[in-house]
Amino acid sequence: MGKNVAIVGITGVVGEEMLNCLERRNFPVDELRVMASARSVGKKVKFRDRELSVIEAAAEAFAGIDIALFAVEADQARQFAPAAVKAGAVVIDNSSAYRMSPDCPLVVPEINPQDATPRGIIANPNCSTIIMNVPVYPLHRVNPIKRLVVSTYQAASGAGRPAMEELAANARAWAAGENFTPRVLPYQLFMNVFSHNADIGDNGYNGEEMKMTQETQKIFHAPDIRVTATCVRVPTLRAHCEAVNIEFSRPMSEREVYEILATAPGVTVLDDRAQNRSPQPLDATGQGNVLVGRIRQDISLPDKTGIALFVAGDQILKGAALNAVQIAELIIRPVR
Amino acid sequence: MGKNVAIVGITGVVGEEMLNCLERRNFPVDELRVMASARSVGKKVKFRDRELSVIEAAAEAFAGIDIALFAVEADQARQFAPAAVKAGAVVIDNSSAYRMSPDCPLVVPEINPQDATPRGIIANPNCSTIIMNVPVYPLHRVNPIKRLVVSTYQAASGAGRPAMEELAANARAWAAGENFTPRVLPYQLFMNVFSHNADIGDNGYNGEEMKMTQETQKIFHAPDIRVTATCVRVPTLRAHCEAVNIEFSRPMSEREVYEILATAPGVTVLDDRAQNRSPQPLDATGQGNVLVGRIRQDISLPDKTGIALFVAGDQILKGAALNAVQIAELIIRPVR
Repeated sequence: MGKNVAIVGITGVVGEEMLNCLERRNFPVDELRVMASARSVGKKVKFRDRELSVIEAAAEAFAGIDIALFAVEADQARQFAPAAVKAGAVVIDNSSAYRMSPDCPLVVPEINPQDATPRGIIANPNCSTIIMNVPVYPLHRVNPIKRLVVSTYQAASGAGRPAMEELAANARAWAAGENFTPRVLPYQLFMNVFSHNADIGDNGYNGEEMKMTQETQKIFHAPDIRVTATCVRVPTLRAHCEAVNIEFSRPMSEREVYEILATAPGVTVLDDRAQNRSPQPLDATGQGNVLVGRIRQDISLPDKTGIALFVAGDQILKGAALNAVQIAELIIRPVR
Repeated sequence: MGKNVAIVGITGVVGEEMLNCLERRNFPVDELRVMASARSVGKKVKFRDRELSVIEAAAEAFAGIDIALFAVEADQARQFAPAAVKAGAVVIDNSSAYRMSPDCPLVVPEINPQDATPRGIIANPNCSTIIMNVPVYPLHRVNPIKRLVVSTYQAASGAGRPAMEELAANARAWAAGENFTPRVLPYQLFMNVFSHNADIGDNGYNGEEMKMTQETQKIFHAPDIRVTATCVRVPTLRAHCEAVNIEFSRPMSEREVYEILATAPGVTVLDDRAQNRSPQPLDATGQGNVLVGRIRQDISLPDKTGIALFVAGDQILKGAALNAVQIAELIIRPVR
C-alpha cells in the first residue's frame, strides 16, 4: 500500500523538512531510506516511531525505492538522480540541475499538477519562483500577465543551514562586541543587505534572477511572459518576501484580485490597510501557505492594468521541502 | 562674513548629523544656536572648539538667525517654521510639512539647485526619494523617464534614533535568549521585514510610497513621470537600499547609463559583475554619495527602453542632514 521513499540530503535543512512534511501529511511510507554524504553515515534521524540510520548516497542505494526526494546541490543531483531513475524511482529534485531540461517537468502543484508525470525526474522550482507564483498564477489564468517586475527580500535559509547559523552567530558576536568574519556567505548579512550571490551573467542578471524569469515561463507554459527580477539577501532566517508588480493584458481591479486570492489554493491573504498589517517573514515562518498583502491598483499605469502585491513564504517549506512532498502526493494520487 | 545658524531638533540623529556636516564642510558659521524640546534644555553639544547649550525651541528663539535647519516632526515644523521666517531666517525643513506646498521649493542640490531661493521655507525631500533620485535624475535629463517601479530596503534610522536603538536592543536580547517587545516600531524588525509603517491611504499606497511618487514629480518638474513604490523596512541601521526599475522614453544602453553615472554629481558607481559586488548598506554608511550598481538592461522590455539599478545611500546623511546642509550652501553661494 505504502511507498518506499528515499530522502537524499537528509542532514540539510530541506532534507530534514522533507521528512517532517512526510510525517505531518501522513504520506503513505513503507520504507524511508535516508541518505547523505559519507561523513554523516550512521547518524540517526527519527521518523514516526522509527529511528533511521543515515546511509551513504550512492548509485546502488536506490534499489526498491519508488520515490526519491533529492535535497542536494545540482552537481550531486546529476551524480545520483539518473541511477535512482534507473532503479525504478521517480526523482523529485530540489536542485536547479534539471529544471530547464525539456525532458523534466517543473511543477508547482497549485499551478501545473498535470505536468507531474509519475516517471523520471520531476524538478522542484527555485524557492523565490514558487513563492511568487503561487499567488500570481491564479491571476494570470484570469487575465494573462504581460510583465512582472519583482524585488526579493530573501532569507539566509536559501543558502542552507550553515548560512542560517552564520547569521545567528554574527548576531551573537555583535551583541558580545566581538568581530565576526563571514565564511559561508560572501558578505556580512547581519545588519546588512546584499544582492544575491548567484553568479552574474553577460546580461547583468544573476543566476537567481534568471531562474525567476525562465522557470516562471516554463511552469506557466507561457514563454512570452516577461519577468525582470532583482534578488536580494536580507538578514532574516527562513522566509522570503517579494514585492511583485504585475502588468496584465487587460484592466484588473483590486476587488477582482482580492476575490481570486481569497479562494486560491496555497494562498492566505493578510492585508489590513487600517492596521497596516501585511505579510512578514515571521508570519510566514512555519506556514505552508504563501501570504499575500499590500494588494493595490498600480497608480503608475493609468489604464488600470497594473496590480502591486507583497508576498511572504517559508523558503524551506513551500519554497522547497513542502512543494517536493506535494509533488510526491500528486504522483501517488494523480490529478488525471 | 559668517551666518547665524540654528538647528532645531539637535538631540535627534538628523540634528546631530546636521551639526557634524556644518563642521566637516566648513560652513561659515558665526553663531550656532541649538534647539530642542524643553526636556533637553541645558544639554551640551560640541561644535568646533565651542561647547553649546541646548535651548528650548520657541517662536522667540530665532531673532538674528540667518538659516534655520529643522530636524523635527512635521507638526513641530509647522509650529515654529513660520516664526523663524518672520524673524528673517531661511528655514530648511527636513519634515514632510511643507514639501508639497506650492510656495516651498523642494530641493536636491544635485538636481534642482535653481529652486533654492534664499527666502522662506525650503523643504528637504523624503530620504528614499533623495537616494533614488540622485542617480536617476541625470539619466532622466538625457532620456525622459516614463515610469519608475521601485522597492525599498529601508533602515531603522528612518524612524529615528529610538528605532535604531530598538533594533540594537532586540539583537542583544535575542543573543541573550530574552524576549523582546518593540515599543518604537510597530513590529519586530530584528530578523524580520515589514511594509513601511506610514499610514495607508485609500489607493492602497502608504505615505512613504506616495512621497516617492509626488516628490519625484515636483523635484524633477515632471508632473507626468509615473512612480510606483513599495516601501519596506529591513533590519539594517542607517542606510537605505532601493531596487529601481526605469522605463525611458527611448532605448537606453547599459554603456550610456554607466557613462552618465560615472560623472554624475553625488553618485559613486560600485558595480563589479565578476566579483558580484554592488552597493550594500554597510558600504553606504557614513558616505555622502549615493552608491549605484547592478546596472543592467531590463530583459523584460525587448525594445531596450528599460534599465534596472540597485542603489544604497546613508539615510541620515544624503537622505536628510547632508542634503539640508547642501541646500544651506546653495543659499549662501547661489548658483545663479
